[in-house]
Amino acid sequence: MSGNAFGNRLTVTLFGESHGAAIGCVIDGLAPGLSFDWDEVRREMKRRAPGQNSMSTPRKEADAFEIVSGYFDDHTTGTPLTAIIRNTNQHSRDYGEMKYKMRPGHADYSGYIKYGGFGDYRGGGHFSGRITAPLVFAGALARQVLRKEGITIGSHILSIGSVKDRPFSPMGETKEVLEGLTHEVLPVLEKDRADVMKKEILSAAGEKDSVGGIIECMAVGIPSGWGDPFFDSVESVLSHLLFSVPAVKGVAFGDGFAMAGARGSEMNDAMRMKDGHVTTTSNHNGGILGGITNGMPIRFTAAIKPTASIGKEQQTVNMSTMTNTSISVGGRHDPCIVPRAVPVIEAVMALGLLMIQEDDSVYGK
Amino acid sequence: MSGNAFGNRLTVTLFGESHGAAIGCVIDGLAPGLSFDWDEVRREMKRRAPGQNSMSTPRKEADAFEIVSGYFDDHTTGTPLTAIIRNTNQHSRDYGEMKYKMRPGHADYSGYIKYGGFGDYRGGGHFSGRITAPLVFAGALARQVLRKEGITIGSHILSIGSVKDRPFSPMGETKEVLEGLTHEVLPVLEKDRADVMKKEILSAAGEKDSVGGIIECMAVGIPSGWGDPFFDSVESVLSHLLFSVPAVKGVAFGDGFAMAGARGSEMNDAMRMKDGHVTTTSNHNGGILGGITNGMPIRFTAAIKPTASIGKEQQTVNMSTMTNTSISVGGRHDPCIVPRAVPVIEAVMALGLLMIQEDDSVYGK
Amino acid sequence: MSGNAFGNRLTVTLFGESHGAAIGCVIDGLAPGLSFDWDEVRREMKRRAPGQNSMSTPRKEADAFEIVSGYFDDHTTGTPLTAIIRNTNQHSRDYGEMKYKMRPGHADYSGYIKYGGFGDYRGGGHFSGRITAPLVFAGALARQVLRKEGITIGSHILSIGSVKDRPFSPMGETKEVLEGLTHEVLPVLEKDRADVMKKEILSAAGEKDSVGGIIECMAVGIPSGWGDPFFDSVESVLSHLLFSVPAVKGVAFGDGFAMAGARGSEMNDAMRMKDGHVTTTSNHNGGILGGITNGMPIRFTAAIKPTASIGKEQQTVNMSTMTNTSISVGGRHDPCIVPRAVPVIEAVMALGLLMIQEDDSVYGK
Amino acid sequence: MSGNAFGNRLTVTLFGESHGAAIGCVIDGLAPGLSFDWDEVRREMKRRAPGQNSMSTPRKEADAFEIVSGYFDDHTTGTPLTAIIRNTNQHSRDYGEMKYKMRPGHADYSGYIKYGGFGDYRGGGHFSGRITAPLVFAGALARQVLRKEGITIGSHILSIGSVKDRPFSPMGETKEVLEGLTHEVLPVLEKDRADVMKKEILSAAGEKDSVGGIIECMAVGIPSGWGDPFFDSVESVLSHLLFSVPAVKGVAFGDGFAMAGARGSEMNDAMRMKDGHVTTTSNHNGGILGGITNGMPIRFTAAIKPTASIGKEQQTVNMSTMTNTSISVGGRHDPCIVPRAVPVIEAVMALGLLMIQEDDSVYGK
Repeated sequence: MSGNAFGNRLTVTLFGESHGAAIGCVIDGLAPGLSFDWDEVRREMKRRAPGQNSMSTPRKEADAFEIVSGYFDDHTTGTPLTAIIRNTNQHSRDYGEMKYKMRPGHADYSGYIKYGGFGDYRGGGHFSGRITAPLVFAGALARQVLRKEGITIGSHILSIGSVKDRPFSPMGETKEVLEGLTHEVLPVLEKDRADVMKKEILSAAGEKDSVGGIIECMAVGIPSGWGDPFFDSVESVLSHLLFSVPAVKGVAFGDGFAMAGARGSEMNDAMRMKDGHVTTTSNHNGGILGGITNGMPIRFTAAIKPTASIGKEQQTVNMSTMTNTSISVGGRHDPCIVPRAVPVIEAVMALGLLMIQEDDSVYGK
Repeated sequence: MSGNAFGNRLTVTLFGESHGAAIGCVIDGLAPGLSFDWDEVRREMKRRAPGQNSMSTPRKEADAFEIVSGYFDDHTTGTPLTAIIRNTNQHSRDYGEMKYKMRPGHADYSGYIKYGGFGDYRGGGHFSGRITAPLVFAGALARQVLRKEGITIGSHILSIGSVKDRPFSPMGETKEVLEGLTHEVLPVLEKDRADVMKKEILSAAGEKDSVGGIIECMAVGIPSGWGDPFFDSVESVLSHLLFSVPAVKGVAFGDGFAMAGARGSEMNDAMRMKDGHVTTTSNHNGGILGGITNGMPIRFTAAIKPTASIGKEQQTVNMSTMTNTSISVGGRHDPCIVPRAVPVIEAVMALGLLMIQEDDSVYGK
Repeated sequence: MSGNAFGNRLTVTLFGESHGAAIGCVIDGLAPGLSFDWDEVRREMKRRAPGQNSMSTPRKEADAFEIVSGYFDDHTTGTPLTAIIRNTNQHSRDYGEMKYKMRPGHADYSGYIKYGGFGDYRGGGHFSGRITAPLVFAGALARQVLRKEGITIGSHILSIGSVKDRPFSPMGETKEVLEGLTHEVLPVLEKDRADVMKKEILSAAGEKDSVGGIIECMAVGIPSGWGDPFFDSVESVLSHLLFSVPAVKGVAFGDGFAMAGARGSEMNDAMRMKDGHVTTTSNHNGGILGGITNGMPIRFTAAIKPTASIGKEQQTVNMSTMTNTSISVGGRHDPCIVPRAVPVIEAVMALGLLMIQEDDSVYGK
Repeated sequence: MSGNAFGNRLTVTLFGESHGAAIGCVIDGLAPGLSFDWDEVRREMKRRAPGQNSMSTPRKEADAFEIVSGYFDDHTTGTPLTAIIRNTNQHSRDYGEMKYKMRPGHADYSGYIKYGGFGDYRGGGHFSGRITAPLVFAGALARQVLRKEGITIGSHILSIGSVKDRPFSPMGETKEVLEGLTHEVLPVLEKDRADVMKKEILSAAGEKDSVGGIIECMAVGIPSGWGDPFFDSVESVLSHLLFSVPAVKGVAFGDGFAMAGARGSEMNDAMRMKDGHVTTTSNHNGGILGGITNGMPIRFTAAIKPTASIGKEQQTVNMSTMTNTSISVGGRHDPCIVPRAVPVIEAVMALGLLMIQEDDSVYGK
C-alpha cells in the first residue's frame, strides 16, 4: 500500500501540505448508519489546533473541516467519508531560503533526497505536523464508534523533560478519569504537575530551545480476542500508526522496557476467575499477549522528541551551494509539541483499535 | 492483508505450528538472478536454533530447510521462493492438559478466545517462538542481498536483567565489529559482560525463573532517501515487524525514550558537508528523519520480556472447568530467550530494510 | 484494501456522491518532478462530462477540478495529489421517492441491502457514473506519464447496438490514429459509421429506451516484461479496473472469445527476429502472454450494457411498503453511455498500465 | 501485494514450478473450527489432474497433497493452512533446448524478458498450468465452506471449438444439476454434446493441433448485498481471479457482450415481490448490479484459448543466438485444456466468493 493510506477493511488516506490549498483525509470502510457528534469532533480538533495558549505556536488555524462525501441525512452512507480542511493562515513571506537550507532534526534533508528537491518545502510541506489534523479528525470518529461498544480511551503526559507524572494504574483507570483527562491542556494524574511541566516548557522557550516528553495512553473495555499473531499483532498495528506520527521515537506496551530488567515470575500476569470471567491479577503485559487482546486495559507509552524547530543557532548545510551554513529557525513553532500530540496519540489508538476490530480475520464470526 | 503475510512488492508469508508437520515461509518478490550462500543461511538458522547450549531449551531441532520453489540453477527465479522446515523433535507426550490450562504470560488465553479453542495448543502452536525460524531464514536471504549493496547489520545484547553492555556508538560501528558480533552466543561490545550475563541467566534458571533483556541493532551503509512520511515511515515498517516477534514489548529508534527528557538543541543532529557529501555530526535520531533515512546508521533497541514459560508455580485458570488452578510449566524452555532472539531481530531488520527499498514509492526512479 | 482504493505503489482512492458536496480522488505514488499539461486534463474531463450534445444527459457539470495537494511549483511533489470536483448542478427537487423505489438495472436494490438503506440515494449516490470523473482525471495524468515513455492509448466504438465499426488492426494502429480518435465524440475507424451510430442512439432515445455498445481500446509502445504470472497478470489488473467502471459487463483481451472457437495453430503468434528485436507476426493474444507483456500492442474490448435509466415504464418494488409498483425513470439520463464511457475506459487502461509498471516486482532493477 | 497472493482477510498464496520439488499454497484467514471432507477435496483435485483420459496429457501426477499446517484435530486452527504437492513425474530428459527456444503462445518469451533468463524454464516453470493444482485445492475448501451457507457452484462447457452446449438458464439451475455436472469429464447440459465435443478435441489432437472453448459457471444461493462499488465489485474480484488462470482471455457476466447489442428495456431485470422477498423476473445482469449481488444466481462465461503447446511446426526465435528457428512442441500436452480448466474456474469462483464475503466492508455487521 502506498505510504499515505493505512488499514485493510477500514482505511484512512491522508493528504495535504502545510501551506497548500487544503489538507484532509478519506476514511473508507466505516459501517453505514453511524451518526456522529460533530461538536465533539470539533473539540478533539481544537485540542490539537495551534495557537491555543502560550505553550504553542501562535499560528492560528481554525481547522474547520468540511465533509464532502460519505455522510448523508445525519448518518454515514457506508461509502468513503472525506473531510477537507482549508489552510487559511499561511504566511505570504518568502520561503525561498527554506528550499535549500536544511533544518536539523527535521525531514528537510531526507525529504529533499527522496523527492529530488520537488517536495513542497513551505512549512515542512507534507511532513508538517499539520497533517495530523486529519488524523485527529479520523480518530475522533473512531473514538465515538468505540465508545458505543463500551471502549474508553484516555491519556496523560507522563513526563515533560525531567518533570514526571505518576503512571496509569496498570489494572485500569475509570472511564471518568480517562474522559476527564481529555479536557485538560496538560493532562496529568497528579494535578500539581501541570504547572511544573508548563514551567519546564516556558523555560525551554525562553532559551529559544524546545523540550520533549512521554505520553501514556490507555484503552479500557476492549474484549479479549482482538488482533492476530505475528504481522497483525495489536502491538504491530498500533506501533505502525504511532511511529507514523511525527516526533514519536519510542513505543512500549505494558511495562515495556522495564520488563527487560525483570524476571518471568514478576512479569507473568497470573490468571483468576472473577464473577465467571477470566481476569488477570496484574497487567504487566498491557492487555496484549501473543499479539491478541486478553481483555485487560491496553496501555502504552510513546516517546516524543523535542520540537526540531528552535530559535537557537544550529549548524547546517545549503543544498543549493552544497556548503556549510547556520540556521536559526524563526517563525512560529511550539517549544514543546507534547500537549498537542496527546490528541494525536489518542486518535491513533482509536483508529488502530477500530481497524483491528474491522480487519480481524476471525472475531465476530 | 492477512496477519501472516507482510510486505507489498516483497512479501513474506509465514506458516506452521510448533508440533505440526512443518513450518516455513513463502518469499515473493525477490529479484531474479540472486545467488545465495546457503552455508551462511544455515549458520543464521543455527544461531536461533534451540539446544545449542546450557542457556537454551534442550529441544533439539536441526531446523534443516528444504527449498521447494523459486530457486533454480543456483539462482532465484523471480517467482515465490518457498522453504519448508520439518518439525522433528516433537514430544509424543500427552498435551491434553495444555489444551485448557492457560500458561500465564503466554498467548494461551488470548488465542483460546480468538480461535474458539480450535488452535493447536501443543507447544504454543502457531504462537510458538519456533515460527521465527522461517523469519530468520527469510532475513538471512535479505541480509545477503543488502550486503551486496554495501549494507551491514549487526546487534548486541544491551542488557540481560540488570547486567548492561555499553551501547553502540551512534555514529556507527565498523562492518567488522557488526559482522563479528554475529559469531557470538552472547554478543556484547565489552567482552567481559558476556560471562556476567550468562551468570544472570543461569541464576534465573536455577530459581525455575526466567529473565529478559534488551537488544540493540544497527545497520550501516543505508543510503539517504529510503522510506516514506506517515504510514510507511521506516520506523513504522520496522516496528511493525519487530512487534511481530514474540516477546518484544518495546521499540525505540535513535536515542529513543531518552529524547523525551532532552532539549531540541541536544537532539537535533547538526549537518555538515564532508568530502562533498552531507553528513550529520551526531546521530540522536538513529538515521531516520520524517520517516526517511538520512544516510546515517539506523539504530534501535528492542525490549524482550522474560520467557513466559517458568518452572515456578503460578496461579491460572482451567478453561474447561472454568475454575482456578495452578501451573508449573514443565518441559523444555529457555530461561532467557534474548540470545536466541538476536538473530530474529537482525532478520527482521534485514527484511524490513529490503522491503522498504523494494516498496519505496520513489527511490531509484 | 477497501473498495474505493486500488493499486499498491501507485494508488487511486475515489470518493463522493452524485449529489453530495464534491467528488474527487487521491493519487498516491506519483513520482516527484512530473509536470502536467492541465489543458489536456481538462479536455479529457470534457470528453466524459455530461451535457455536451444531444446524445447525452442535459445535466451540465463543468467538472472543474481543484488540486488541493501534491502539486507545487508546476511539479508533482511525490506526496498525495488530491483533486476535488464540486457538484454544482444538483437539482433541488425532492428525491424522496427514489429512496424506496428501486430502478431496475441499477444498484438501487443491491446497494440498499448492502448499506441498510443509509446510502445516499440521490442520483445514484456513490454508484453514480459521475464518480468516473475523478477516474478520468487520474487517468489523464497517467496517460501523460506514459506518453513520455513512448506509450500511446486510444480507443474507438466497435459497436452501438447492432451498428459495427471495423476492429483495430491487431498489429497496432499508429499513434496518430490513436490520438486522433480522442478528439471525436463518436470515435470510429470507418468514419461513416459515426452517423449511423448516432441514429441508433437517437432512435433508442425516441423510444424512451437506451442502447449499449462495445469499446475497443489499444495501447502501443509497451515494453515487454511488464506484469506478473497469476494474480498480478496484466489481464487481471486491467480487468479488475475495467469491471470497476459502472455498466461494463464483459472484457476480452486480444481475439478474446473468438480464441475459444479456434485452433492453437491459428492463435499462437509466431515469433521472428526483426531489426535485432523479437517480434510476432500476428497478435491474437493482445500483447499479453502468461500475464506479461510481450512488446506487442495491448488490445481489449469492453462490453457496455445499455443505460439502466429509461423513460419506459418498468415493473419494480417499493422497499418501504414492500409492494410491487412501477417506475418510469424521469430526469436527465443518457440514451447511450458508450461515447462518454470511452474516455473512462482509456483512463482505466492508462492507470492500470502505470500501476503495473510501478508495482512490477522486477522490471527496471 | 505481490503477484502470487490474493485476498485481504482471506488470502491465498501460490508457489511452485512444474519441475521443481513441490507446488502448493498457503491459505490464511480461514475461520477456526471448520472441518473438511478431504475425499471431496481429492475428487476435485482429480478432476484437474493430468493423465485421466485420452483427451489429456499422459503425464501422471497423483497430485497428492500434504497439509503441513493449520489443520489440527480435524478442524482448521484459524492460522495459515498450508498444502504441499510434490512433483513426482518430472521427466529427466534434457530441457536445455527449451531454455532458449521460445514456444509461441506461451509465456516463454515474456517471462524470459521479465526474469532476465533466470526463470525455471522446465515445463513452463511457474507459468505451468500445473500451478492451478493448489488453486483447485484452495477452491475445494472454499466450496465446502460456501455449501454450508447454502451456496452451490457448478459449470459446464458452453463450447469446444465450434461445438456448442445450451447455456445455463439465467434464472438458475437446481443444486442437483450444478452438483451433478461436477462428476462429468465433459460436463454439458445437453448430454449428447459431450461426444461431439470429444470428437472435436480428438480431431484437433489428430492434426497435432489444439482447440479452445468456453466455460460457463454459475453460483446459486448467494445473498444480496455482497461486494462493493468500484474497485471491489464482485465482477472486479472474480475477473481478477479468472484472468489469473492461464489461458483465460475473456470474461463476461450475465448476458455479457450480448448486452452491448441490446436495449435497456430488454436488459433491465424487472423487480417483483415474491413470498415477501424481492426478486427479479429475469437475470440478464448475472446476479450483480453496481458491483453488488442482488440475490439472483451469479453467472459468467470464461473464454479459454486453445492450448499453446502443439505438435505442428511453428516459427519462433532462439534467445541465445537471437536468430529465427522453428519448433514442434513435443512431449506431453493436452489437445484441449478446457475440460481440466472447468474445476479451476469453479475453484476460482468459490475462492472469489468466499473472499468477497470475508473482505466485505459492511455485510454482517
